[in-house]
Amino acid sequence: MFSEEGGLSEVKTKAQAARRAAREVAVLSSDVKDQALLAMADALQSETARILEANALDLERAREAGITGALLDRLTLTPERVESMAQGLRDIAALDDPVGKVNRMWRRPNGLKIGQVQVPLGVIAIIYEARPNVTVDAAGLCLKAGNTVVLRGGSEAIESNRCIASIIGPAAEGEGIPAGSIALIENTDRKAAQMLMRLSGTVDVIIPRGGAGLIRTVMETATVPVIETGVGNCHIYVEKSADLDMAKAIVINAKTQRPGVCNAVETLLVDESIAPAFIPQMVKELQEHTVEVRGCKGVMDLATGVHPASTEDWHTEYLDYIIAIRLVSGFEEALDHIHQYGSGHSEAIITENYGVGHSFVDKVDAAAVYINASTRFTDGAAFGLGAEIGISTQKLHARGPMGLADLTSTKFIIYGNGHIRP
Amino acid sequence: MFSEEGGLSEVKTKAQAARRAAREVAVLSSDVKDQALLAMADALQSETARILEANALDLERAREAGITGALLDRLTLTPERVESMAQGLRDIAALDDPVGKVNRMWRRPNGLKIGQVQVPLGVIAIIYEARPNVTVDAAGLCLKAGNTVVLRGGSEAIESNRCIASIIGPAAEGEGIPAGSIALIENTDRKAAQMLMRLSGTVDVIIPRGGAGLIRTVMETATVPVIETGVGNCHIYVEKSADLDMAKAIVINAKTQRPGVCNAVETLLVDESIAPAFIPQMVKELQEHTVEVRGCKGVMDLATGVHPASTEDWHTEYLDYIIAIRLVSGFEEALDHIHQYGSGHSEAIITENYGVGHSFVDKVDAAAVYINASTRFTDGAAFGLGAEIGISTQKLHARGPMGLADLTSTKFIIYGNGHIRP
Repeated sequence: MFSEEGGLSEVKTKAQAARRAAREVAVLSSDVKDQALLAMADALQSETARILEANALDLERAREAGITGALLDRLTLTPERVESMAQGLRDIAALDDPVGKVNRMWRRPNGLKIGQVQVPLGVIAIIYEARPNVTVDAAGLCLKAGNTVVLRGGSEAIESNRCIASIIGPAAEGEGIPAGSIALIENTDRKAAQMLMRLSGTVDVIIPRGGAGLIRTVMETATVPVIETGVGNCHIYVEKSADLDMAKAIVINAKTQRPGVCNAVETLLVDESIAPAFIPQMVKELQEHTVEVRGCKGVMDLATGVHPASTEDWHTEYLDYIIAIRLVSGFEEALDHIHQYGSGHSEAIITENYGVGHSFVDKVDAAAVYINASTRFTDGAAFGLGAEIGISTQKLHARGPMGLADLTSTKFIIYGNGHIRP
Repeated sequence: MFSEEGGLSEVKTKAQAARRAAREVAVLSSDVKDQALLAMADALQSETARILEANALDLERAREAGITGALLDRLTLTPERVESMAQGLRDIAALDDPVGKVNRMWRRPNGLKIGQVQVPLGVIAIIYEARPNVTVDAAGLCLKAGNTVVLRGGSEAIESNRCIASIIGPAAEGEGIPAGSIALIENTDRKAAQMLMRLSGTVDVIIPRGGAGLIRTVMETATVPVIETGVGNCHIYVEKSADLDMAKAIVINAKTQRPGVCNAVETLLVDESIAPAFIPQMVKELQEHTVEVRGCKGVMDLATGVHPASTEDWHTEYLDYIIAIRLVSGFEEALDHIHQYGSGHSEAIITENYGVGHSFVDKVDAAAVYINASTRFTDGAAFGLGAEIGISTQKLHARGPMGLADLTSTKFIIYGNGHIRP
């Protein structure tokens, strides 16, 4: 019990310190923040050896626990990856500071001048899993947008995270960032994360970054406002007027270019009238790219090596070399399928018909709706928004790839000259 | 048990119907929505007698329960108030439709065209207390912004609300709004409200409108994202360079023009160096306006009839003819007081010093920060934003008076021509 209580007091203490620091960080000049980001980058690179040593401990523990494949890869740091984290901080320093931007300003008939200005959110908590690079990215983005941050990474990466935090924190402080602005919760017990989620009044917003299970837990437990990120059950609908070569190229890209990410396609919907001309070749190409194809009856009739798809498949975000294919009678049925099973992330139509494309863009309710392009573009960098803290799949505050501006709130500023309300 | 289960199934049934209707309402033309709003307004006016009869039942029950004063007044409808509700709907019809507005659009180097467009939130739940006019306002605003709405008013106003809903719902349907788009939960049991708060996936956002207790309950219970509204512990800081006549006029206005609302001032902070010149006259004027003055020791020494203020006073939103006054040593102490006790609603400084005003605007973290104007202006209409659904005191999504645009989300629309990610 002693260590647990000690651990929980760590959460409260660090969050409260972050809250105090937030008042100062909110009004720091861009120059101070940028100098700190550059110093953090330099410190990371010069301490590469120490980071790799810490990471080796995490990797050893992971291997002992039987972790392999993609998960082990995500946990692994190399000199190149450390350099890339440092470069990420330098890129953030080069972005425009979103704080203080006046979005609009107007004058009322009574002469009152009213403006709406971007201000930091305050204290941001990030709850994440095995990627140690999130520690650096999140700290950099939150700082640039004038926020303090409480980081709570997964137990798998605790040695790496602790080492990284011990490097970037002091480097930032050396450039005038108040102590406690970049806090890492070292207690990896579930109770520590739960406590963090319920510190309303101290923490302004929680952003979970990780799998569906983590995100669901945060949504259900938190009293602090949450920005939901990431689950992507994405569809591509090949409409009957589609350029079939374009459709094949986009499907292969959206499925195989990086299948483990949220903007990869999971289900393909195909108008039945073009299925005979499209499905056999499409399935063959997918299989050549080592993709397992699961299909409805109509698809199985048209191609070989197709496994039967169940309702569960329509619900599933595979994040793997698997795709589900379903034939639809036309636009309305495709729309209904996406409405019923989609997670509101990224949805695409392939069509040469102007009116159908127009309706798809209007009617599909998702963070990103595409005509004739791969769903893989849903990404802060690909959209040209700069670095990204995650992809919001909720409708409040921010939706889709979240850049620096999404880490700010607004306030109204009102300039009067003795104005009273009549 | 039977009636309770029946009542809870009402919540789910109506919320799910609202969800289904939301798909259609989201893509309705502005014309259809505006015609529906006008028909709702006409129906309200022509059914005034029926509404007043229903309201009389609520008022009778309220009087029997010993309800008097402001609460009874809020519950009371008159022909003029019904007309004013109808006019409110006509005003909403005259506002610009926020749906479909493209906030920004750009072209990436690869030719991909990316835009960010305003779209409805979906299903909005409003949980409110005794004012029957909220039933009309909220229904009108939600509809105009392309949303469906699930209304859950207080038990005090159930007869009025049920009557109003039975008028505006069919009037809207008559103009092509799908059935179920404007739903009233008739079960006024707490459990019904709790269930509504936890319908994630069916309800997109909850907006509580009412007192601090209601808002806290919603924040703690809801799994659906909440927009926190309304608690206003607002301050006016009279800085030493202030025009003292202006300060007095603004304080009297902010305290007495309408003391029962969230943007009324609750605590006055005064630089001690000007206190002898300011406090005696200020206190006298407040008392002449029947305001009870509570003060720190320094204030009590300078004026008569001042009650001692305790720490609890600094925390209190009186919503009444009471004000707390505290002397401060200067700008930093005023800032600290506001930071510690303010609710982040509306904060004002009275000053003739440019630099001090500049710092106040930068450093105070609130939805609305004023120089030389009454806090009473924090209001959608006074800001020129049109009708208002509430005043957000949270930092996510919307902060300050929320107009129609705050009842929308966004989506990215991406136009390609066979684009794949390299």
